[in-house]
Amino acid sequence: MTEPPFGSVAIVGLGLIGGSIALAIRENWPSMRVVGVDSQSVVAHALGSGAIDRAVDAVAGLPETDLVILAAPVQQNVALLADVGRALAGAATVVTDVGGTKRSIVEAARALPDVTFVGGHPLGGGERGGFAFARADLFRGRPWIFTPDGTDVGAGFSQPEGMERLKAFASGLGAQPATMTPDEHDRLMAYVSHLPQLVASALMEVVGSASTADGLRMAGKGLFDTTRLASSPADVWRDICATNADAIGPALDRLIERLTELRADLGRGAAVDAVFDGAARWRAELVKTRE
Amino acid sequence: MTEPPFGSVAIVGLGLIGGSIALAIRENWPSMRVVGVDSQSVVAHALGSGAIDRAVDAVAGLPETDLVILAAPVQQNVALLADVGRALAGAATVVTDVGGTKRSIVEAARALPDVTFVGGHPLGGGERGGFAFARADLFRGRPWIFTPDGTDVGAGFSQPEGMERLKAFASGLGAQPATMTPDEHDRLMAYVSHLPQLVASALMEVVGSASTADGLRMAGKGLFDTTRLASSPADVWRDICATNADAIGPALDRLIERLTELRADLGRGAAVDAVFDGAARWRAELVKTRE
Repeated sequence: MTEPPFGSVAIVGLGLIGGSIALAIRENWPSMRVVGVDSQSVVAHALGSGAIDRAVDAVAGLPETDLVILAAPVQQNVALLADVGRALAGAATVVTDVGGTKRSIVEAARALPDVTFVGGHPLGGGERGGFAFARADLFRGRPWIFTPDGTDVGAGFSQPEGMERLKAFASGLGAQPATMTPDEHDRLMAYVSHLPQLVASALMEVVGSASTADGLRMAGKGLFDTTRLASSPADVWRDICATNADAIGPALDRLIERLTELRADLGRGAAVDAVFDGAARWRAELVKTRE
Repeated sequence: MTEPPFGSVAIVGLGLIGGSIALAIRENWPSMRVVGVDSQSVVAHALGSGAIDRAVDAVAGLPETDLVILAAPVQQNVALLADVGRALAGAATVVTDVGGTKRSIVEAARALPDVTFVGGHPLGGGERGGFAFARADLFRGRPWIFTPDGTDVGAGFSQPEGMERLKAFASGLGAQPATMTPDEHDRLMAYVSHLPQLVASALMEVVGSASTADGLRMAGKGLFDTTRLASSPADVWRDICATNADAIGPALDRLIERLTELRADLGRGAAVDAVFDGAARWRAELVKTRE
């Protein structure tokens, strides 16, 4: 067990990610004080399970902590950031978030000169959202991307100092910290995260609408695996789509184009061969990254 | 262990499905004689592992067996069926196949009055094709669909008699036999099997082409699960697409339409909400069918 890089943390939003961070802190640094912000029923569950030490109703009531983690949907995080800035009022606190897009919140943070903010995105993910599905090992072995933007402000830490502590925090929870710009992050995620999610949900919606329960019973393991993401919550993804539309749009265009080529060539099979050969090659590459 | 419904079987094509049938027979009915037909290197592997008792080079050299299972890609099965008809020449043999589409082979079988043919489709499936990935438990708990077409021909068994034995065979290997018409099968599979496969492969091809190896390393569990099918062999799927184009086409159209709606509405989110809410509901239905 390493020394905790922060003595105390406030987690705003105790869903799958925020809740899993709280549980992972408990496991790795039991001495760290954890404050949680969420609705009454969620904080009751979190207090009851011992994941947090103290609950507050709203960001305005936050006690001073060394770290604040915004773990609500992206656009709520953007709105909460301004409240956090006011609540902290110059305290020596590092603020980060865990949202699936980074440009919008990093942009919003630039308008708050008193806040030391570094965007973050842990890539752990689960089939179902919500505190009930949170797990201490959600981040183990997975990337945790930070997106410093070179601004060096904040009352307590500089952004580089904050970054070093955040990397130690992510490592301590089992993740592999990585760094890229908010732009690089959002363009990459449009393909490796946002496109798969939209496709899995659209596929499940189309297959479900066309099938009976008996029909779904006849499905093989393929449909089951391919639609594993389809339980993901709409509110989280509405915000991701809205804040990364310019990157997701072209990715969707490329997929629609490929599906249209397949559709036009089903009988002949040249497009089928090209897509399957390429897919098998890339799938082997993807599998290699997990070995 | 039940009495084997057939004393001997010839399996034409020892890939994932044919190979798994051989292994499952070994486990359940060690007394059943199993003949395999495939290329030299594959039958050598199958003989070496004890999955088959005897290998022959080609269908023309098949010894008389109680059951013949065609387990090559669909259009090869259609071609092999005529050869099998000639090789059997009126023997008391039931012939089935394991292809992912049923109309084309059932149609082809109607032209062979001496052959008792019942189309079949075991829904077990694996991430990778080929004998090397064959498993005795591939069919356990999964549907095995048969598609009798009401023709009652063949030298030995009538189609209903053949069906009963085939159902006992599928049950013995751990599967759950089901019955539908070739038409019903192909329309249903277009949605619950063929569409997910095409989408998984197209997604992997698009994401891979747009990404670096470093980028793929940053992908979460979502991309990994959603593209699990993307290693599927092109030859198998070229035949499935060619023999079910009229059913797969409209299914692809509906998915392309839904993705186009999402693409047009990324910034507002009404389409995102509709798709995600529907998807989560259908995913819950799908999960229920596995409980």
